[in-house]
Amino acid sequence: MKNYQKLKGLVAATFTPMYPNGDIHYAVIGQYAQHIVDSGISGVFVCGTTGEFTSLTTEERKQILEHWVKAARGRFKVIAHVGSDNQRESVKLSRHAAETGAWGVGSIAPGFFKPASVRDLIGFFKPVAAAAPELPFYYYNMPSMTGVSLSVAQFLQEGKQEIPNLAGVKYTHNNLMEMGDCIHLDDGAFEVLHGYDEMLVCGLALGAVAGVGSTYNYSPSVYLNIMKAMEEGDLASARAFQMQSIEIVKVIIKYGGGVRGGKAIMNLIGIECGGCRLPIAPFEKEEYDSLRKDLKEIGFWGK
Amino acid sequence: MKNYQKLKGLVAATFTPMYPNGDIHYAVIGQYAQHIVDSGISGVFVCGTTGEFTSLTTEERKQILEHWVKAARGRFKVIAHVGSDNQRESVKLSRHAAETGAWGVGSIAPGFFKPASVRDLIGFFKPVAAAAPELPFYYYNMPSMTGVSLSVAQFLQEGKQEIPNLAGVKYTHNNLMEMGDCIHLDDGAFEVLHGYDEMLVCGLALGAVAGVGSTYNYSPSVYLNIMKAMEEGDLASARAFQMQSIEIVKVIIKYGGGVRGGKAIMNLIGIECGGCRLPIAPFEKEEYDSLRKDLKEIGFWGK
Amino acid sequence: MKNYQKLKGLVAATFTPMYPNGDIHYAVIGQYAQHIVDSGISGVFVCGTTGEFTSLTTEERKQILEHWVKAARGRFKVIAHVGSDNQRESVKLSRHAAETGAWGVGSIAPGFFKPASVRDLIGFFKPVAAAAPELPFYYYNMPSMTGVSLSVAQFLQEGKQEIPNLAGVKYTHNNLMEMGDCIHLDDGAFEVLHGYDEMLVCGLALGAVAGVGSTYNYSPSVYLNIMKAMEEGDLASARAFQMQSIEIVKVIIKYGGGVRGGKAIMNLIGIECGGCRLPIAPFEKEEYDSLRKDLKEIGFWGK
Amino acid sequence: MKNYQKLKGLVAATFTPMYPNGDIHYAVIGQYAQHIVDSGISGVFVCGTTGEFTSLTTEERKQILEHWVKAARGRFKVIAHVGSDNQRESVKLSRHAAETGAWGVGSIAPGFFKPASVRDLIGFFKPVAAAAPELPFYYYNMPSMTGVSLSVAQFLQEGKQEIPNLAGVKYTHNNLMEMGDCIHLDDGAFEVLHGYDEMLVCGLALGAVAGVGSTYNYSPSVYLNIMKAMEEGDLASARAFQMQSIEIVKVIIKYGGGVRGGKAIMNLIGIECGGCRLPIAPFEKEEYDSLRKDLKEIGFWGK
Repeated sequence: MKNYQKLKGLVAATFTPMYPNGDIHYAVIGQYAQHIVDSGISGVFVCGTTGEFTSLTTEERKQILEHWVKAARGRFKVIAHVGSDNQRESVKLSRHAAETGAWGVGSIAPGFFKPASVRDLIGFFKPVAAAAPELPFYYYNMPSMTGVSLSVAQFLQEGKQEIPNLAGVKYTHNNLMEMGDCIHLDDGAFEVLHGYDEMLVCGLALGAVAGVGSTYNYSPSVYLNIMKAMEEGDLASARAFQMQSIEIVKVIIKYGGGVRGGKAIMNLIGIECGGCRLPIAPFEKEEYDSLRKDLKEIGFWGK
Repeated sequence: MKNYQKLKGLVAATFTPMYPNGDIHYAVIGQYAQHIVDSGISGVFVCGTTGEFTSLTTEERKQILEHWVKAARGRFKVIAHVGSDNQRESVKLSRHAAETGAWGVGSIAPGFFKPASVRDLIGFFKPVAAAAPELPFYYYNMPSMTGVSLSVAQFLQEGKQEIPNLAGVKYTHNNLMEMGDCIHLDDGAFEVLHGYDEMLVCGLALGAVAGVGSTYNYSPSVYLNIMKAMEEGDLASARAFQMQSIEIVKVIIKYGGGVRGGKAIMNLIGIECGGCRLPIAPFEKEEYDSLRKDLKEIGFWGK
Repeated sequence: MKNYQKLKGLVAATFTPMYPNGDIHYAVIGQYAQHIVDSGISGVFVCGTTGEFTSLTTEERKQILEHWVKAARGRFKVIAHVGSDNQRESVKLSRHAAETGAWGVGSIAPGFFKPASVRDLIGFFKPVAAAAPELPFYYYNMPSMTGVSLSVAQFLQEGKQEIPNLAGVKYTHNNLMEMGDCIHLDDGAFEVLHGYDEMLVCGLALGAVAGVGSTYNYSPSVYLNIMKAMEEGDLASARAFQMQSIEIVKVIIKYGGGVRGGKAIMNLIGIECGGCRLPIAPFEKEEYDSLRKDLKEIGFWGK
Repeated sequence: MKNYQKLKGLVAATFTPMYPNGDIHYAVIGQYAQHIVDSGISGVFVCGTTGEFTSLTTEERKQILEHWVKAARGRFKVIAHVGSDNQRESVKLSRHAAETGAWGVGSIAPGFFKPASVRDLIGFFKPVAAAAPELPFYYYNMPSMTGVSLSVAQFLQEGKQEIPNLAGVKYTHNNLMEMGDCIHLDDGAFEVLHGYDEMLVCGLALGAVAGVGSTYNYSPSVYLNIMKAMEEGDLASARAFQMQSIEIVKVIIKYGGGVRGGKAIMNLIGIECGGCRLPIAPFEKEEYDSLRKDLKEIGFWGK
């Protein structure tokens, strides 16, 4: 297997900026990219769950990616999420990602029809990964959304035989035992990107060195501080920052979760991401007032 | 609300014929349609779960529908399934269904992002139904696939206020109490299409007069006999035929479920539907031998 | 296997009468038994889920059963539920049931530690059934409460080899396909007692001839009418009565389910069953007022 | 609220020694207690899930506790698990624990009938905790076994108002965000005992200072090393030991889980705990051979 540059640090799962009518607001991406650079974030994961990929057309996903690659100007890594229940669409998106100049590709498992075995999942991903053969391919494991609960360690080991550019997994699941297992599999041959922001210290304690998250978009310093403290073995500080993260996540859960609540926070910090497409409910005016107040209470705006 | 012609009898959820390489085999649809006519089936439900809609592109779904409408020549009803996690795609498919001459449209709930309330589900469906305003719109309720478990009765009652062409529900769920409730809601204002073939007598006992199913494709007489016996109050006969149905369903479950196993049976009865697209695993040669034997054992080919 | 008298008709799952302080109010059982006789009910299922068996001590369960056997005076069948997570307690209860003169015994599966296979479940039940060797033994299948989802058909077939007095199953689950399968297994060798009152017509349509339920306690005529209409092939009438049943079940669900809401209804019809033991919450005074009103609205008290 | 001595370090959830016929082998407890002392373990949690409490009679639970208190001779803390679906049994066990000289009591939530709200859970526990008023009371939260998923933070805060001796929670759940939240609740007013051995570093990273686990019984040094390394901020070492723990847990999962597999390991290390009571299946002779081999492969016996 080729030796890909290891991903380190924080990768923000980006929101998809939208106009009030739901059309994509491409123009925001330039400002958003500058915000990423200023934040110290190492990369972005484009059109994933946070980016509402299932609510976007294939054409929109392509254009959004193109805008990100262009706006990044090599200042941070751009990973294209190319997952879809439709394998053929996924292959097209993967090829497009390679042509566009994305740094890597990732894909969630199909969730309507679920692969019955690791073998079926490998079969599903194989042409997808092969369509971007020079890029690292990451399996985006998120059973809470897909209902697919196959062994990730088995997938990595067997998948490696058929998918040469399989680099690792974005692990968004609370089975931290399995996560630890994957990190140490084959002497650390695979990259395991931590996926649950609210327990980043746990993933780092187990050996993860990178994370993909949505709250990194608007609270980057909290997580950069966690990373730094953990590197220095300063658990007390890491824990204190993690508690700030937990407070933030409690707020977004109150407002319908990371996509709906997170997008609203993006608007509050000045990156105009607009609202979500249905079936995620519109964010009401009064909710913004209440959200602002809740964020103030947890010291989100500083003290 | 307009008074739509009530749907009665059996509606076959069609398989999508494919070539060995996975491309759509449109030419089979003509023969398939004749088979439907010969079977005494009243209608087809095109590109639903059985038709692997999540594995098809929007363009493919349009073309498949066009072939069905053309092949039907008014001899049976053609209901277009237009569901998608992507509301905009769904709206396009709905408009296309109306333009193409479909008899009705149906849509499953979005399942990746799940509507948090009945209100959100109505909001999601509203423009979809409005894109085919002259056609009856059916909500395709199937929590086992979508994970969406909202109250169907509430959806029908509240949805009717905003979706004038809401005709009823394709009810594919084992909560028969709720199903009975929906049948009798507002003095029977809504059509409730029974969705689980293996318990058709149960739905009919509760008052359903129509069913949508995948095994109707290859065992129509079993179900027509159930319908007839139930109409005549001949429970013993109905039950005997239902047991035949249960035996068939046990076989398809053994082969991976109604889509995978059912498509293989279609091939055996001479309608060349081919295999499934991934992530549904390919059907192996030896499996066909075994399947043939299992079908023989349950008397599928007659005695 | 011995040929046991087939159970036919309705079996009421009895509530356990309690004083305000939670002590068992044994004296009520005599009146309760007369109510059963007057209702036309064929039997009682004592200390099952409805009887709050997990909240009772072994000694209380014994005494309650003794009171029921004595009060029945052979006028209806008394089935003792002897299930427990603790096999040794279960064996004692089973032996006691035989000594006390119960007509049959039944047992739910252990649910904290779950049997990993049908074989383990058989192993668990074997000494329990053997402790009452002359009585029919029923497996009480209720996955929604136990989380045990083993194949019931397999259990019946394999269990019969080791448990000579295995008579059948109280089937309280919405997998009606499996229920139909069990009814017709080995040419009807097993008794399958329908367990969900709100869909009794479905079970009867599939061939069941007996049911065990909690709402039979206070709405016996509704179910006797369903049984009669189904026997006569009068589906329209059966359905109409089933809809009355569904309305009743909707009410008890509103009040916390069949045990909590049902016990309150018993009090309203004059059988002083009192409240439930914790963790089932006490029934408040205002709830009784509201319940009375809800029951009036659905015509529970006649028209 | 009284200021209880904070629990620190490792608490072993003890297995219940049994003879081949399933009777309790009380005589082993003395040797077992010495093993605990030699191991450097701070306490034991008696008759919890690991101790098969649901398979034991109330009388057995009392006697087992008495043996442990006696054998401990004050050399380690003895926490009595007094949980039961039956509140009255639970109260008796709690009173007995206090009389016997246990250091603390803990209780799992009732799982057959599930408390519908935090308020109901508090109502259920209140008399249980009050029966041992001088001892710290721990809520044993384990949704995977009970199906009870109420907010633990809410329980702690509201429960404290009614249960003066509520000390904290044994947190056996993978919602580490909630666990972190509980640790920091009210400035650390509650003790949060980490419950999943295979992710101890995660709990410690979040601020836990104690853990209750079953693998501590036979791999104490692995966990003592984790505790020590984490205290010193030596994450690399902690992680390496945690990986040893994960390997052990993978083995016990292979053999049916922590109770079945763990009890077999106890026999291998010379503490004769025997087999489990049904419904946990007996451990076969060949399984012991295989287990021995698997343990050797992961270096369980040293290198």
